[in-house]
Amino acid sequence: MKRVKVSNNVIRRMPRYLRKLGELEKNGINRISSFELGKQLGLTPSQIRQDFSCFGEFGQQGYGYNVPALREQVGSILGTDRGFSAILVGVGNIGHALMDNFCFSEWGFKLTHAFDINPELFDTCFNGVPISSMDDIVEYVKENKVDVAVLTVPSTAAIPVANFLIENGVEAIWNFTNQELVEPNSPTIVENIHFSDSLLSLSYYISERNDEKAARAARLEKQN
Amino acid sequence: MKRVKVSNNVIRRMPRYLRKLGELEKNGINRISSFELGKQLGLTPSQIRQDFSCFGEFGQQGYGYNVPALREQVGSILGTDRGFSAILVGVGNIGHALMDNFCFSEWGFKLTHAFDINPELFDTCFNGVPISSMDDIVEYVKENKVDVAVLTVPSTAAIPVANFLIENGVEAIWNFTNQELVEPNSPTIVENIHFSDSLLSLSYYISERNDEKAARAARLEKQN
Repeated sequence: MKRVKVSNNVIRRMPRYLRKLGELEKNGINRISSFELGKQLGLTPSQIRQDFSCFGEFGQQGYGYNVPALREQVGSILGTDRGFSAILVGVGNIGHALMDNFCFSEWGFKLTHAFDINPELFDTCFNGVPISSMDDIVEYVKENKVDVAVLTVPSTAAIPVANFLIENGVEAIWNFTNQELVEPNSPTIVENIHFSDSLLSLSYYISERNDEKAARAARLEKQN
Repeated sequence: MKRVKVSNNVIRRMPRYLRKLGELEKNGINRISSFELGKQLGLTPSQIRQDFSCFGEFGQQGYGYNVPALREQVGSILGTDRGFSAILVGVGNIGHALMDNFCFSEWGFKLTHAFDINPELFDTCFNGVPISSMDDIVEYVKENKVDVAVLTVPSTAAIPVANFLIENGVEAIWNFTNQELVEPNSPTIVENIHFSDSLLSLSYYISERNDEKAARAARLEKQN
């Protein structure tokens, strides 16, 4: 695919489009206008048209978007058709939760192997994914295509384990540890799931709403 | 606090500032320039100054920022000093993971109670948090201050359980279920943790890097 630099904000909206289009397709909707799509996503139609225009011409004026075709195109932009493979490092609560409930294949990924330091888990399988000793990672990464390591070790182990993975050829990490793993501009691609960032944004919005309620109450008080 | 409308992008960066400032403070760093802070976060100094200027005057020209003071101010902007309380609904893998590893109190929240449909869990405690039957939620919400419900039920139960919570007075939901819970512009505040959105962004960045590598290789091939 020919690449132009696209802003992070646009990239971050693409997965939301993909989810919404999947939902529409499941509900048998074949065609949608940018107006209706925007309404369902809380975005303006022009924002939507602009976002897609970063990647080519997808809609048709007066017709709108063909839902299945657009879904396939957005998937392809995001790389869901590239057969990426992932390993999971750290089979604790979060690791188990992902192996149990998160459907990697729905998003084009194959979770091929998991690793832990707990000997009780060695040579077992969870949901069809074999679990091996951390000591076997080096060999595994050498002999298999590993596009992403899902890092679900305890926070305290995050940085040494990440460095170990990077030294052994892992080029992308999906990071669940709440630790900053690399310096900005590192060649390793790190995508962080920071639960706290999400909770704090929520905290902001609740604070804002509470302040608005209090201000409204104060205005009413003054009027009476 | 007096509120002006601040863009979502700014709000989304505030938790990152808070984490970074906490890290700096822990390392005994008392003072930092916007230049250095920007370097450590991969942002420009002017972006940082602009972000903080949405909320008041924090730095001092020629001195930079006082780290502990700024950390407190950012925490206060985000509402970490408001004593918000949370309940957790659905004690499966993710629920357990959060109760076990996620430090709500570090971010100013108190996790007061959890609920599930599994009778084996009723009247037990996990990490100091009591677990009760889903049937007891209505009464609990009536009698206790609940600022947030953490929704960690299976996807299939997400929408009915969310509607039930909203009907019973819950005004904010931290949503781990990968389901869209409310219409845009709903009065309920919903903050989504969409694992798939994060993985798909990562997928995009890996695809982009692979394409760049392929293009470089093709150029080299052509030169030889």
